[in-house]
Amino acid sequence: MAADEPMTGAESVLRTLSASGVEACFANPGTSEMHLVAALDRVPAVRPVLTLFEGVASGAADGYGRMTGVPAATLLHLGPGLGNAFANLHNAYKARTPLVNLVGDHAVLHAPLGAPLASDIESVARPASHWLARARDARSAAGEAAAAVAAARSRGGGVATLILPADAGWDASAGPAAPVTPQPAAPVPDEALERAARALRSGTPAAILLGGATTRAAGLHAAARIAAATGARVLHDTFPARLERGAGVPPAEPLPYLTEMATEALAGLAHLVVAGTQAPVAFFAYPGKPSRLASEDTDVQVLAGPAEDAVGALEALAELLGAGAAPTPAAGPRPEPPSGGALDAAAIGAAVAALLPERAIVVDEAVTAAAPILQATAAATAHDWLTLTGGAIGQGLPVATGAAVACPDRHVLSLEGDGSAMYTIQSLWTQARESLEVTTVILANRSYAILDFELSRTGAGTGGAAARDLLEIGRPDLDFVALARGMGVPARRADDAPALVAALREAFAEPGPHLVEAVVG
Amino acid sequence: MAADEPMTGAESVLRTLSASGVEACFANPGTSEMHLVAALDRVPAVRPVLTLFEGVASGAADGYGRMTGVPAATLLHLGPGLGNAFANLHNAYKARTPLVNLVGDHAVLHAPLGAPLASDIESVARPASHWLARARDARSAAGEAAAAVAAARSRGGGVATLILPADAGWDASAGPAAPVTPQPAAPVPDEALERAARALRSGTPAAILLGGATTRAAGLHAAARIAAATGARVLHDTFPARLERGAGVPPAEPLPYLTEMATEALAGLAHLVVAGTQAPVAFFAYPGKPSRLASEDTDVQVLAGPAEDAVGALEALAELLGAGAAPTPAAGPRPEPPSGGALDAAAIGAAVAALLPERAIVVDEAVTAAAPILQATAAATAHDWLTLTGGAIGQGLPVATGAAVACPDRHVLSLEGDGSAMYTIQSLWTQARESLEVTTVILANRSYAILDFELSRTGAGTGGAAARDLLEIGRPDLDFVALARGMGVPARRADDAPALVAALREAFAEPGPHLVEAVVG
Repeated sequence: MAADEPMTGAESVLRTLSASGVEACFANPGTSEMHLVAALDRVPAVRPVLTLFEGVASGAADGYGRMTGVPAATLLHLGPGLGNAFANLHNAYKARTPLVNLVGDHAVLHAPLGAPLASDIESVARPASHWLARARDARSAAGEAAAAVAAARSRGGGVATLILPADAGWDASAGPAAPVTPQPAAPVPDEALERAARALRSGTPAAILLGGATTRAAGLHAAARIAAATGARVLHDTFPARLERGAGVPPAEPLPYLTEMATEALAGLAHLVVAGTQAPVAFFAYPGKPSRLASEDTDVQVLAGPAEDAVGALEALAELLGAGAAPTPAAGPRPEPPSGGALDAAAIGAAVAALLPERAIVVDEAVTAAAPILQATAAATAHDWLTLTGGAIGQGLPVATGAAVACPDRHVLSLEGDGSAMYTIQSLWTQARESLEVTTVILANRSYAILDFELSRTGAGTGGAAARDLLEIGRPDLDFVALARGMGVPARRADDAPALVAALREAFAEPGPHLVEAVVG
Repeated sequence: MAADEPMTGAESVLRTLSASGVEACFANPGTSEMHLVAALDRVPAVRPVLTLFEGVASGAADGYGRMTGVPAATLLHLGPGLGNAFANLHNAYKARTPLVNLVGDHAVLHAPLGAPLASDIESVARPASHWLARARDARSAAGEAAAAVAAARSRGGGVATLILPADAGWDASAGPAAPVTPQPAAPVPDEALERAARALRSGTPAAILLGGATTRAAGLHAAARIAAATGARVLHDTFPARLERGAGVPPAEPLPYLTEMATEALAGLAHLVVAGTQAPVAFFAYPGKPSRLASEDTDVQVLAGPAEDAVGALEALAELLGAGAAPTPAAGPRPEPPSGGALDAAAIGAAVAALLPERAIVVDEAVTAAAPILQATAAATAHDWLTLTGGAIGQGLPVATGAAVACPDRHVLSLEGDGSAMYTIQSLWTQARESLEVTTVILANRSYAILDFELSRTGAGTGGAAARDLLEIGRPDLDFVALARGMGVPARRADDAPALVAALREAFAEPGPHLVEAVVG
């Protein structure tokens, strides 16, 4: 573009995103996004990160947003590109991760003509977008971009999707738009605080359930103060978006995944005060089992939902209760890594607890192995734990990728089931391309073990040969060492606990991404 | 299930699909689909095929339906599973492939509670479904399944999506439902035939554009008869769902992908008679270029759209015009394969023309290399050619997988760009698991070459360093030999034409899937 040419709509959008705080764009572009791609050279403050599949882009933007609190952009190609991104946008939507999707569409006059890629983009976007708009033209696109960033940062955060017709990208704009101030999380009314205080002072069994923003240090500290003052238990959502834990961070009990164990964990409570999330619900329904996890006899109070200032509410509640400082768990000595034995979830947990780098980010899509590893690492060096918020499998490797882009000075440990890994395995290539500090541990049990388990739990029996064959992925075995090397990531296989320990030591010591295929029984 | 227990809703659905002609189910199930999985053992006439990613399932069902004319089912897990399937459902939607999606949802009373996987499934499904319904309960589900198959087989074919709540799967049904008769394609009115006949008899330059069902042998023969009688040219859509071609099949000119070349191909026509498709439209819009490809001076007549009986209309038109038999191109001798030289699209085309097995199915997602290969194989042994109907990249490997399941006695040759291959690379594992006769040739040029080309065509310039970096996938190079081996598919690399020839000979001679990474300049 010559100096005297007007700025394109695409450049005005990108400059607006940058001025509004966006610093990364996870992209898998196509022809309708070419002007956005070209504008990247003129807006160098936005870092482009190429992915080979849109589900990697959306998951990486989720991981990035969870770690920074600032939205990354995705760059997606019409309805099918958005469709490929959908599963991980669903996870981000449930996590309320700040995230801005830029979806290119056909030029306005081309869209109604039935070209091959034409489709109803809004319909696909709506179920995973807190905010959704279509730029009318190049002059209004920048204003929509500013509104999108503000929406993504408003009221607890969320997914904002802006559809940009190709000609709104290539026509002349009126320049970038000024940033829009986000809406703060809504304050919690005094009546709700007083009601929660009465419940917690009542002397009857009570618990606090944490989710959303409250599973970070400030929320955990406030909850620990309340617990110390009242005797209430502190639990957290089964799948928190970002849980701070380990040495120096007040602990909280995870609400178990299994309906039976979750109802047991909540049994006998007179009061359950919920902060940053909703009243607890089972992941799936099962014949004859409850969907609502708290007992009918429990008084469930949602002190603050995910769009409200739940951390502020907990801090105010602690003051109202006259709570003092909470005891901070001291860091113990690092445990020794396992020196022998078979490779199972407990051994992996012990190895991680022993070797986890300081301030590591753990991304957990370990599925059936997750609970033992979580338990084993409760007192490990302080770390963040990111989980599968929306249940849409294929989140782990992309979220790890985005978290590593967000935090280049921290190690990311990606704990991943073998079946789950294959949904978005293309992530490894972006990790290699960007030299990201990600260590992926594939828990290779050669099956969809969770489904094997769920088959009988749903009352569908133990399965005949055809059914069981749909739950086994060991015919043929996947060779994750070959897959990783095929995408430029150094990899090795571990068949026992010492081999895993050696592989983790190597991976944490060498720069760049690594993968370990942990063959578990 | 004991003999005296009532049949579940899931089994009633599966039995209804089977009774309605469905013989294959491409699956990536989750907990909400466990009763459908369990029922597979009781309905052995439906073959379950496991995929590691839903986009493989939907693309495979597309390939299967294109080759059989009978819908396969997919088995998908709630909104995110459907999202993963969306891109290839979009391609199937544009191809009007008969296909039935079974999407599991939460149990009815669980759905509104905000569990992690809850979402608006209908909203995601609608843009890629010709028919969409939700089973109310276990007693009505079988009737909906019969209606879904009928919809998928009606009026030119299409995508039918049935959402099945988990409890509609596990509750007691009233047994299977009787098959529903599909609606036939609408007949073309005599007035339209007469108008087309007048145009073709006028002595002015005329052409017939074929799409939909007319690119199979019957339509091509009817068009060739009309051409022989009137002098009209015969063209086919740029991206036909299934094109029969090669020795013994009357040829048709492909409408070029590029707007400039397509308008040139249609220039000077007084009349364009369209059969089985719509009036031709550019794939994308470009600044200052037309979206409608026919000249404003051309009389464009849609003789029959995709939901009408376009083959019958062409045959009736040939009769109306008093056309005799069309000359059938004789099969020439097989050309010799290239014995030397670099590996480029022309060399690949020459190798394919020389070595293609009889009655092969070619799946073309070769993108920038497609046109030269198409040209080189025009007189090859008779074969089917399946293309990227909806422009949603990642179709090739899954469609090849499904075509091979549909036609176990035929060879499938999958011509695939390296960038495109990575969207649904998980297909290779299903090919290995099912020992499918698929030979995949990856055209590895280490870039999104089509986008490099489109960048300047959209007027976005030649791109700075950041832009160009988003179009290059050679940092690091993908090693497709390692990737294929990692999923159990034997693979080798070819760096020149003789190596490709040797690899193809081996792949066509040995049973089971193979992959060749063709490193092209």
